[in-house]
Amino acid sequence: MTRTRIYLDWNATAPLRPEARTAMAAAWDCVGNPSSIHEEGRAARRLVEAARVAVATAVEADPAQVVFTSGGTEANVLALSPLFGGAAPLARLITSAIEHPSVLAGGRFAANQISRFGVSARGTVDLDDLRRKLGEGPPALVSVMLANNETGAVQPVAEVAALVHAAGSLLHVDAVQAFGRIKFTIKDLDADLVTVSGHKIGAPKGVGALIGRGGAGMPQALVTGGGQERGRRAGTENVAAIAGFGAAITAAMAAAPTEIVHMLRLRRLLEEGLKASPDVVIFAEDVERLPNTTLFGRRGLRAETAVIGFDLAGIAVSSGAACSSGKVSASHVLAAMGVPGPLAESAVRLSLGPSTGESEILGVLEAWRKLSGVLGKDG
Amino acid sequence: MTRTRIYLDWNATAPLRPEARTAMAAAWDCVGNPSSIHEEGRAARRLVEAARVAVATAVEADPAQVVFTSGGTEANVLALSPLFGGAAPLARLITSAIEHPSVLAGGRFAANQISRFGVSARGTVDLDDLRRKLGEGPPALVSVMLANNETGAVQPVAEVAALVHAAGSLLHVDAVQAFGRIKFTIKDLDADLVTVSGHKIGAPKGVGALIGRGGAGMPQALVTGGGQERGRRAGTENVAAIAGFGAAITAAMAAAPTEIVHMLRLRRLLEEGLKASPDVVIFAEDVERLPNTTLFGRRGLRAETAVIGFDLAGIAVSSGAACSSGKVSASHVLAAMGVPGPLAESAVRLSLGPSTGESEILGVLEAWRKLSGVLGKDG
Repeated sequence: MTRTRIYLDWNATAPLRPEARTAMAAAWDCVGNPSSIHEEGRAARRLVEAARVAVATAVEADPAQVVFTSGGTEANVLALSPLFGGAAPLARLITSAIEHPSVLAGGRFAANQISRFGVSARGTVDLDDLRRKLGEGPPALVSVMLANNETGAVQPVAEVAALVHAAGSLLHVDAVQAFGRIKFTIKDLDADLVTVSGHKIGAPKGVGALIGRGGAGMPQALVTGGGQERGRRAGTENVAAIAGFGAAITAAMAAAPTEIVHMLRLRRLLEEGLKASPDVVIFAEDVERLPNTTLFGRRGLRAETAVIGFDLAGIAVSSGAACSSGKVSASHVLAAMGVPGPLAESAVRLSLGPSTGESEILGVLEAWRKLSGVLGKDG
Repeated sequence: MTRTRIYLDWNATAPLRPEARTAMAAAWDCVGNPSSIHEEGRAARRLVEAARVAVATAVEADPAQVVFTSGGTEANVLALSPLFGGAAPLARLITSAIEHPSVLAGGRFAANQISRFGVSARGTVDLDDLRRKLGEGPPALVSVMLANNETGAVQPVAEVAALVHAAGSLLHVDAVQAFGRIKFTIKDLDADLVTVSGHKIGAPKGVGALIGRGGAGMPQALVTGGGQERGRRAGTENVAAIAGFGAAITAAMAAAPTEIVHMLRLRRLLEEGLKASPDVVIFAEDVERLPNTTLFGRRGLRAETAVIGFDLAGIAVSSGAACSSGKVSASHVLAAMGVPGPLAESAVRLSLGPSTGESEILGVLEAWRKLSGVLGKDG
């Protein structure tokens, strides 16, 4: 880009942190395969293991329970297995209605083994509905995200965990959007499995991890073959990306206290400015949200048109999730929250990052004031 | 590494090509998610699609039939599915006995659906045995590698394809070691599916592809969720690694005529030197091999000791495959060729690359002469 652009789509993917670049460039010179026993192989192995410790440390997990994958989606599919260690297969999967598509797809559960529970209008999961679903059958694997990628709403995972474990079930938490943005430990969550990803926190695309608690064992491998990752994920390790992941999460954790305050301040400025337009709604405004995420709408606005309008004004934003192939469709998250179609179809997501500046927020608000006038109130 | 090392383990993983470094560093500055519709997203999408054309071009395939994965292992597991498009499920998988562990593991076929056919003492697949196995049951998916990773032996894939298609079966070819090292097209192979990988050709670790011929359709997705890769492989694309893959294969194809001649000349020098020691055996010597691969042994030598001895002498080599977690075990490839245990356990692989120099080969031969004297002939 030669022009100065404003990038407010950090929930889709974040710019690389300088620490990740440095770590990856260093890893490029480390030619070995981590499975090789010679000096080059051992050097590559050390990079992978140092990153494993960094990722584990961020959530206070045991490094031996970290399985590196090619990203959050693969980690979610790996997690969603009926088979854990030597235990009897789990007969069903229960997910919330606002999960990421890689969780809603159900991993290795058959379609007729999957059920969903609802969320409130505020954007958090309905614990009563979960309790009912748990009571309807045998122990299940339950998958609930820590923070929603569209609204940013933080879910009551500890309360979910209490219900799940009381029912003799297992809990998987997709923490992709929360990782590095709010502080949590695997023990706080009381989760059996947690998914994290690199590219939302300034690590490269193409790396993530599934982290276990230890007790329940790990799910049956998805990618099978060689003995890498203790037999839990075959294939030559993506050494440079893994090294970048370790460097990025270490940097993110160190900077988090400062970055969170910074993002919250800018988001307050942003939301105050947006709400100066009449009829603007901030979704999930009444619950705890990630410090960087604002999903807003206004009846009559067409999200796709707004995204293109912002883009032409030099600002990258999103209409909800950016996880399908360029396809803009109505948000399943807002539908689950009971938001009426026309309002849901207006939803635009602005997601900030630690390097977002106040002038960028002011630029977005100025663009919004122009767009807001042009884009009909009741288009 | 500060000392000058000699790296002869290119079949485990190859040093990055400069073209891949340049492409990846450029991709780092391309912040967008390829699924996003804004300028940053479209720029990332262009990098992915340009690489898709580059990979397709290398084997004369249709870019629309290239599915990017996290590497060769994932591409193999993706390929090995009973389900293709809307056709009836394939009831069985037939592989050769010398396939990579990710093929031998059988992907998504159940253990009782998998059978193996043998190889000759020369190191190539036994076509009569394949014909028998095909005749024993309903149409199968057959998986045969183009070149073996340990011996370098090039397999008679076109003859395999004729048998497979005459039996109404489908053919998958794992071309990971052959890609960029010998010239082939998907049409030459007459394969329905071909696996290629980045890190053997100077692209980064963490990227590969499954390439289809078109007719048979593609296998059911392994990593499910978002609609990326036309619904065949979910998850945010590893943009930088994919861009590096495209740049590396383009560079490799352009340089191949020169590089092949160079590697063949150096390998001749290497093998003449090795055979000056009494009793040295070059495995699969009588068949066409990759231009860069020598697997040799000598009764009484212990491969693991030799690898450590070479390493201490500043030379990185391998004892057969480097695809398990540092574990050295007897080669399933040599066992399938009927090589007696003590000779098989002596096998050391020297794999060269385009930047290998004559002085390095002379250095290896000097080290071998010293080691050869120290390591007992009938240890």
